[in-house]
Amino acid sequence: MKESKDLKTEVWKMARKAKEASCLLARFSTDTKNAALREMAEGLERARDLLIEENGKDLAAGEKAGLSLPMMDRLRLTPALIRGMADGLREVTHLPDPVGEVVKMWRRPNGLMVGRMRIPIGVIGIIYESRPNVTADAAGLCLKSGNCVILRGGSEAAHSNHAIAQILQNALVETGIPADAIQVLPHPGREAMREMLQLEDSIDLVIPRGGEELIRFVTTHSKIPVIKHYKGICHIFVDEDADLEMAARICLNAKVQRPGVCNAMETLLVHEKVAERFLPRIAELLTEAGVELRGCDRTRRILSHVGEATEKDWSEEYLDLILSIRVVDGIEEAMSHIESYGSLHTEAIVTSDYSNAQRFLREVNSSCVLVNASTRFNDGFELGLGSEIGISTSKLHAFGPMGLEELTTTKFIVYGEGQIRN
Amino acid sequence: MKESKDLKTEVWKMARKAKEASCLLARFSTDTKNAALREMAEGLERARDLLIEENGKDLAAGEKAGLSLPMMDRLRLTPALIRGMADGLREVTHLPDPVGEVVKMWRRPNGLMVGRMRIPIGVIGIIYESRPNVTADAAGLCLKSGNCVILRGGSEAAHSNHAIAQILQNALVETGIPADAIQVLPHPGREAMREMLQLEDSIDLVIPRGGEELIRFVTTHSKIPVIKHYKGICHIFVDEDADLEMAARICLNAKVQRPGVCNAMETLLVHEKVAERFLPRIAELLTEAGVELRGCDRTRRILSHVGEATEKDWSEEYLDLILSIRVVDGIEEAMSHIESYGSLHTEAIVTSDYSNAQRFLREVNSSCVLVNASTRFNDGFELGLGSEIGISTSKLHAFGPMGLEELTTTKFIVYGEGQIRN
Repeated sequence: MKESKDLKTEVWKMARKAKEASCLLARFSTDTKNAALREMAEGLERARDLLIEENGKDLAAGEKAGLSLPMMDRLRLTPALIRGMADGLREVTHLPDPVGEVVKMWRRPNGLMVGRMRIPIGVIGIIYESRPNVTADAAGLCLKSGNCVILRGGSEAAHSNHAIAQILQNALVETGIPADAIQVLPHPGREAMREMLQLEDSIDLVIPRGGEELIRFVTTHSKIPVIKHYKGICHIFVDEDADLEMAARICLNAKVQRPGVCNAMETLLVHEKVAERFLPRIAELLTEAGVELRGCDRTRRILSHVGEATEKDWSEEYLDLILSIRVVDGIEEAMSHIESYGSLHTEAIVTSDYSNAQRFLREVNSSCVLVNASTRFNDGFELGLGSEIGISTSKLHAFGPMGLEELTTTKFIVYGEGQIRN
Repeated sequence: MKESKDLKTEVWKMARKAKEASCLLARFSTDTKNAALREMAEGLERARDLLIEENGKDLAAGEKAGLSLPMMDRLRLTPALIRGMADGLREVTHLPDPVGEVVKMWRRPNGLMVGRMRIPIGVIGIIYESRPNVTADAAGLCLKSGNCVILRGGSEAAHSNHAIAQILQNALVETGIPADAIQVLPHPGREAMREMLQLEDSIDLVIPRGGEELIRFVTTHSKIPVIKHYKGICHIFVDEDADLEMAARICLNAKVQRPGVCNAMETLLVHEKVAERFLPRIAELLTEAGVELRGCDRTRRILSHVGEATEKDWSEEYLDLILSIRVVDGIEEAMSHIESYGSLHTEAIVTSDYSNAQRFLREVNSSCVLVNASTRFNDGFELGLGSEIGISTSKLHAFGPMGLEELTTTKFIVYGEGQIRN
C-alpha cells in the first residue's frame, strides 16, 4: 500500500516537473534546440561502450526470460544502431522548426488581423515496446517541436533506455535546457504507466506504439487524449484496367520489401476480369520470394496449390511473409471489403481507369490512399514530412504519419487597434 | 438488470446505425447537403406551434422541478428563437463545404504527387445542457461537414430536443439522406450517456459543452476522444504604455457587453505604473454598468471602496457582472498570473509597446491571444471561421473556435505512376 502510494507520488512529481519545463521549453530558440540535438548525438557516440554494456544486461535478462528471437533482435543495440540514433538526431536539426510558424493570417472587415500560430502541444507521453532506439528518436522529435516528453519503453529494455535518457539529459543541461524536458518513467511496469495515464492536468497527449493489447490497455485507462499508432491491414486492389506488369511490381514491393512493418500489404484484391491473367504471374513472383499464399475460393480455382483463406485471415496483420488473396467483382466489392476488414491505415489501387482512380482516392478513408504506388510509401519521410514519430490510425488531430508539425497545435493570434465587439 | 441491458443494446444499435450512415454521408454532394439544410430550416418554421407546445411541456416540468430563472430562460423557445435556428441553418448553406478540399499538394523527388484531403471525422457525439437551439445548430454544422451526429441534450429539454430532431430527420429523408445521420440519444439520463461513451468503435469524437461537473463526467467515463469546451477565465493586461482611453473601452466591452459567456473578461491585470491613473477611471465606468469589483491589496489602496479579491477569485469564472482586479509589476508578473490561474481560453494585452505586444502573443499559450482588442472576439464568426460548434480548450485537434474545417480531418492521397520503394 505504502509502496503504491510512493509510486503514485513519484510519477506525479515527474509529470509536474515536465509540465513546468514545458513552459520554458516552448520559448527556446531553434538554434539552442539544434545545439542540444547535436550534443545529444555526440553524447550517444561517445558513450557507445557504456550503452552496449547496459544493453548487454537487458539482453542477458531477456535470454533468461526466454524472449523470442525477433524480440531479442529488436532489443539489441549495435555500434551501427548507435550511429543510426546519432545520425537521426543530427537529421532533425536540418528540419524546419514548426514552433512560432504562422500558418495563415487574414484581415477581418473590422480591421482585425487574425492568424494561427503553431505552438508545442506541451507534455507528451510516448509508450512503446522493445526497440531502445525509439528512446532517442522520439526524444529528438519532441525536443525540436518544443514538447517535453515522458518515455515509457518496455521493461525488457529498461537498462538501455535509462542509459540513453541519461546521456540525452546531460546534453540538455550542457545546452542550458532543463533536464526535465526528457524523462523516463521510473518503473517500467504497468502500475506506473497506469498512474501516468491519470495525470490529465500535467500530460497533454499520450502516443502508444505497439501491439493490440498494449494499445487497448492505454485507451481503456487513459484520461489523457490518446493518438493510437495501431495495426495496418493494408490492401492493394488490382483493377480490370491495371497495367499488370506495374501491378506485379507494386504488389511484390508492398509485400516483400519489408514484411514486418505496418504499411506492408496483407491482402490482395484482384478484379475477376484480370484474375486469370494476373494471379499465376504474381503467385510465381511471391512464391519465389518465400511468401505463403492463402486464397478465397475463386482464387483457389485459378491457383490450385494455394491454401484457404478463412474469415480470420481477412482481419489479420501478418507482419510476415504471408498474403491473403481475394477475387472481387469490381471496385464496389473491393471498397466494401476494405471497409469491413481494413484498419484505416493504407490502401492502394492499381488501375489505368481515370474515374476508378479518382473514386478510390475520394471514397476510401484510410490515413493514406494511393493510386499506382506501393503501400510502403505511407511513411513520414517518404511522403515528405521529413521524419515521423509514427503513423496515427486515430482520426483526431493527426491521421497518418506524424511529423514535427503534427506534434504542434495552433492558437489564434489577433492584432487589433482598439476594436470592441458590437 | 434487464432494463439496463436493454438500454445498452438500444444505445449500441443507435451508434451502429450512425456509423453505417456516416460512410454514405461522406459521399453526398454539397448541393444535396445544402438542400437538406434549407428543408430543415423550413421544417422548423412550419412546425413553430408544435415546437412551442412541446417546449411548454419542458417548461412546465422545469417550473415544477424548481429550475432557476436563468435556466428557465435558457430552456424557453420563442418564435424569434425558432426563426433564429432556421436562419442559422440557412447561413450554413452559404459556408464553403470543407469535405474533399485538398489543403496542400506537393511533388516528391521520385515523382509521387502527395496531398492532404479533408474528410469528415465520422460520427460525433455532442453533449450539452439546457438550450434546445443547440440541437439544430450542432446538427447543421455536422451535416454540412459530412459527419453523423448523436445529440445528447439536457433531460430538462427532452421534449423540445426530440421534437426538433424529428423535424430535422424528416428533412433528411425528404432530401434522400439517411435519417440516422442525425439522432438524439433516446434517454436523457446519465446512464445512456455512460453507455454511449464506451462505444469507441462507432463514435469518433465526443464534444461536451457545459459546466465543470458535466465535462469531468465525460472525460472520466469516455473511451472515445474528447474535445472539451471548457470554462473561460479570461484576462486583460493593461500595460504601462497602454492608450488608457482604448484600454477603458476594451475592458468595458470585454466585461459588460455579454457577461454570461466564456470569452468575457473575468480578471483585469494592471501595470503598477498606470494603476493610479487607470483604475479610478475604469472603476467608475464599470460601476456605472453595474459591475461588482474585487481587488488585490494594491488595487484597494487606490480604490478604497472595492471589496477584497481572495485566492479563490483568481480562478473563478463568474459569468456575471463581477470582476477581479490585480495590480502587477509588469508583463512578467501578468503572464505568470495567467499561467497560474488562466484556463487557456482567451487573454488580451493593451499596449503601445512593440516588443511587449509581440512577446505576449508569442508566450501566452491560450486558444486566442489578442493585442489591443476585446476578448469577446474569440468566437468562430468574429474570427472569420463562418460559424462554430463551440470553443475548444483542449489542445489536440482544435484549439479555440471549431468551425466546419475543425469538424474534418485530413487523409494523405498519393498519385503515382508505378513507384515502388527501394
